[in-house]
This record gives sequence, structure tokens and C-alpha cells, in this order.
Amino acid sequence: MGEEVRNKQIILKHHVTGNVKECDMELKTIQLNVPEGSNALLLKNLYLSCDPYMRPRMSKTEGSYVAPFTPDAPIMGIGVAKVMESGDSNFQKGDLVWGMTGWEEYSVVTTSQSFFKIHDKDVPLSYYTGILGMPGMTAYAGFYEVCSPKKGETVFVSAASGAVGQLVGQFAKMMGCYVVGSAGSKEKVDLLKNKFGFDEAFNYKEERNLDATLKRYFPDGIDIYFENVGGKMLDAVLVNMKVHGRICVCGMISQYNLEQTEGVHNLFCLIAKRIRMEGFVVIDYYHLYPKYLEMIIPQIKDGKIVYVEDVAEGLENAPSALVGLFSGRNVGKQVVMVSSE
Amino acid sequence: MGEEVRNKQIILKHHVTGNVKECDMELKTIQLNVPEGSNALLLKNLYLSCDPYMRPRMSKTEGSYVAPFTPDAPIMGIGVAKVMESGDSNFQKGDLVWGMTGWEEYSVVTTSQSFFKIHDKDVPLSYYTGILGMPGMTAYAGFYEVCSPKKGETVFVSAASGAVGQLVGQFAKMMGCYVVGSAGSKEKVDLLKNKFGFDEAFNYKEERNLDATLKRYFPDGIDIYFENVGGKMLDAVLVNMKVHGRICVCGMISQYNLEQTEGVHNLFCLIAKRIRMEGFVVIDYYHLYPKYLEMIIPQIKDGKIVYVEDVAEGLENAPSALVGLFSGRNVGKQVVMVSSE
Repeated sequence: MGEEVRNKQIILKHHVTGNVKECDMELKTIQLNVPEGSNALLLKNLYLSCDPYMRPRMSKTEGSYVAPFTPDAPIMGIGVAKVMESGDSNFQKGDLVWGMTGWEEYSVVTTSQSFFKIHDKDVPLSYYTGILGMPGMTAYAGFYEVCSPKKGETVFVSAASGAVGQLVGQFAKMMGCYVVGSAGSKEKVDLLKNKFGFDEAFNYKEERNLDATLKRYFPDGIDIYFENVGGKMLDAVLVNMKVHGRICVCGMISQYNLEQTEGVHNLFCLIAKRIRMEGFVVIDYYHLYPKYLEMIIPQIKDGKIVYVEDVAEGLENAPSALVGLFSGRNVGKQVVMVSSE
Repeated sequence: MGEEVRNKQIILKHHVTGNVKECDMELKTIQLNVPEGSNALLLKNLYLSCDPYMRPRMSKTEGSYVAPFTPDAPIMGIGVAKVMESGDSNFQKGDLVWGMTGWEEYSVVTTSQSFFKIHDKDVPLSYYTGILGMPGMTAYAGFYEVCSPKKGETVFVSAASGAVGQLVGQFAKMMGCYVVGSAGSKEKVDLLKNKFGFDEAFNYKEERNLDATLKRYFPDGIDIYFENVGGKMLDAVLVNMKVHGRICVCGMISQYNLEQTEGVHNLFCLIAKRIRMEGFVVIDYYHLYPKYLEMIIPQIKDGKIVYVEDVAEGLENAPSALVGLFSGRNVGKQVVMVSSE
């Protein structure tokens, strides 16, 4: 090591309040100094993941489970990368890995323990930012470990065509549940019904009264709500839950751009309906990852589980892809391809 | 049977919106016709219980776990009563019972299955509206079954000098937890610290910033929150919970008189801190009642658990006692004595 590499990066210019905009980030070119004789890895980043949880990291506020990003430093996120040089005997040049990397062409990482080596390459590499990576594990742990699902139960998934939601719906169908999803466009609703096999789906932007909408799809109530959005949808769900229902709190994307989050008013339903509402973070469940891969890879290869991605090409388009998440512009899992190999 | 008895009753005049007032109720005298040859019980009501959950029943709104009260009929609530006549072979004249009765001198009840016979009379009879009845079982089930407490954990109880809170605090101390309670007067704070053995207590009405208050008493965060009040306190607690904390949702008394409940803004903490927030209703746990009595009665007799009641004398004072719950006028469990025997 010891050489210098030209490196394009996406920098967070400053901490963000309110709506995140493309101009909160900036493309910058630096000379990357590769430290010599360390146990660091030099990674070439191939695919970067755009995920809702990244928005809270762009704010200065504390209280999240991950530290705020550092202004003037590259955005950090999950990515798929190729090992170019390795000072760590666990990794070889040419290995493919996924884990927490920088939004840049090359990254020098010293925390190699947080990288998973990619063994199965018969599937699209980008899947390791999605179905085979963090969002896939999120759907798996959230649905099977947090929701306590049973055959025949009624399941509602919000942001249902997203990176996590599309999988939760398919897992719930595999278990024999009745599954309804909400999304923000006709195209997404069609995907839910025709590609992912949801029993029903609706465009929440076209519904004037979410309470009435949920009563239409769940006349007898909801056993399981997989919560990805928060705010008004959560309030409408609370009054439509069944007794002993479960709310698995995975995300609240509708709230991340707000300076003052919406208040949730119907929490008394937790008592009246004896609801368990439980938040979780996928990092608590990575011990299940090998078991998950063993289950999911054959399902992908047999076409029993499908996965839809929205791939933006080029690092320079990463800010727009990330911003688009919060208006729901992406259809399926949002990925940025930095380089195909 | 077949005779007529003069019977004073407290009637709900109409469904209530906003603050419940004494004038929403009315004292009325009727002639009670005791049905002949039925399997009904004629009860003489001795002690009536004033409980926060009764407020939602006074509204017309649905969504609670118990049906709204019927206007022009007596308020219904938990009471201790003496069987005067019995058409049910499970009950004898002279038996003492507790269960759902009417706010009146005498009640004819036909659902005898919902009454518990009182066997141990070495304790104040009024205790069967409190520590030995529904609130006692609520504290027991909520703390031991819902909170999953462990020795050494930090526990916060709101409305801590109330019918349920004073017991939760004592149970938590028995388990070796650090326990802090909130209440609404200096007198109550003194009770918490000096009579119930809480480690710390504060008067929430004197705190300008509940977040700072909780940080003062829980510099390392809260493992268990026993929720009795809702609203702003819940919001302050959410940001002060520890990772993997538990919120046992027993009641939300601060919200019951509001036409529009306060919004809760910090639910994202459920994710960031992996919190389980679980509502419960005591009726799901009555199978544990014999076990609970076996545990609690010796503790009472040995003076290891204490219980403070606020007894209003006379049925005519029941409306004022009930209304007083919502401004926190009662000190300890609010009971109405209709007759001492």
C-alpha cells in the first residue's frame, strides 16, 4: 500500500433540518491515501444502498440508534464492494463483501469485522444491498421474530413495495396469512398485487379516510401491522387492530423529514386491544443471517420469492436517489450502481 | 323474593364529552323490584370503587374494551357487597362478594359468575376494591407478567400513589429494582418516599421540563416504565428509555377527559431503543387471582406491603369522588363507603 488513488465522493455538506435536498450533498474528488502496512482493506465500491434510516443520521439530533453523519465527510451506508488490497488475513484481494462503506469510489476500511463475505454469486450482486443484505434480514427478523405470525392471520404492511415491505408481504403469504399493502402510486399497487402476491393493495395518496380504507380491507381487524411509515397511518391502524394484535415497528419514513413529528393520538388502543407494539433494529439479529441465506437463496433461484430494485447508475446520481426515497419516487429497493465490477 | 325495596342510585344523566363533572351524574331514588324465583342475587353494596377506566365508559365513543354506560341507568363499577338473597346455589345469604355492581344501595345481579366470594375477612373489606381486587391484580399482572422485570433494573411509575401505582412500586422494590414515582402533590411525594419505599419521587406539576427531570433521576435511562398517565409524560419517558426497555401500558388518565387526546411525538424511540410497549387489561389475568391472594395476604398481615385508601362516605358523595380522580384530589385508592355492613 501507500499509493494514492483519485477518489470521487458524495459529501454531506452540513446537518440537515426539514426536507433533505440534493444540494445538502456534494460531489467532491480527493486523492485517497492508502495507508501502508496496516490491517485495512481497500475497497472498490460497486453498489450503494439508499435506506430510509439514513435520513435521521443526516440530522444533528441524538436519540437515534446510529450516530449522526459527520459534515464534510462522505455519506456512509451499506454497500457491496470488491477487495482491492487487504492487510487483513480474513480477506483476500478479489473478495466480494458487503457492509458499511462510504459513498465514494474507493473506501479504506479498518473495521473489517463488520463486513460479510459474499459467497453465492449466482444472484445479482446488487441483491446484497437488498434481499440478501440488511433489508432482507430486516424483513426476516421483523416478520418471523417480532410479529409472532400465525397461519390465517391478517397482516397489513405499509410502504409495502419498498426494500423491506415487498419481502414481508411475500413471507406473510408463504405463511398463509391474508396480506394487504399500502404504497404511493398505481404502479406500486399493481406490483404488490400482481408481482408480490399481496391479496389486496391500495394507494394511500388516493384515500381520503385511512380508517375507512382499513375497515374496507380488514372488516374484522388487523392481527399484525408491519410499520414502516408512522404518523397518520399508525393512528388509523391503531383503531383497526384486533385484540392481542402486534405492531412491529421497523421504520417511520413519513416522519424523517419533519422538523416536528406528527403526534399519534390513538395509543389508548394499546390498552383496549392489548396490543404489543415493538421496535427492533436488524443489527440485533445478524446471528440469524446464515440461516436466512439458507432459506432465501433457494427461494430466489426457484422464483418463489421475487425482488424488485430501482437502480440509479453512477455515484453522481446517489444524492437524487436518496432524496427520492422520501417522496416515494423509487419503485422497489433503491440502489446506486457505482461500478458493475 | 318479589318484594320492593327503596333504592338510592347514582345515575349517569347523559354521555359526557370533555371534563366529567358532578352534574353529569344525579342521585335518584327508585323502588327496586326484586324478581321472584330467578337465579338472581340481591346485593347490598358496601364499598364502591372509583377507577380511571370508568371515564371512557361515560363517553359515547367506541374503541374501549368495555361498553359505554347507559344514560339514565346507574353507573357501574367494581364493588364489595353482601348477599341479601340468593337464587343461585353458589351463593348464600350473608356471603360477602366483590365484582361488577351498580352505584346504588342495592343491586339485583344476574351474572353471578362475575363475582368473587370473599373468604379472608381479617383485612379491611374495602381492600377488595383495591389491593385485594381489580387494582391489585392489575399491578400484579402488569408488573410481573408484562414488564418482565429483573433485579437491579430501573423502574419508573407514573400516578404512583394511585390504586395501582403504589403497589407496582412496592413490588418493584421487593424485586430489588431502583424505583422512582411521579405524583401530583407534595403529600403524595412524601407518601411514595416514606410509606411505600420508593427510592425517589417527584411532583410532576412542579417540573418544568419532564425530560430533564427524568434524566436527573435516571442518568443511565429507564428499563421499565409502568404507564398510567399518557400524553406529555409518555413523550418524556420515550427519550429516556434504555435499549430493550419495556413500557407496560396500564392507563392514560391524563387523556380521558380530553376531547382530542394529546399527540405523542417520540415513538421513533421505539425503534432506536428496541422498546416493547404493551397494553394489557386485567380481565385477561384473573386466572392468577388465587395465586395472587396467596402471595399478597400474608404480606399485608406482616406489614410488608402497605396500602393507602381515600374513603368517601356515603353514596351521595360518589360523583364528587369519581370526578376528583381526574384532578388527582384523592390520596391513594379512591373508595366510596355506602354502608359499613
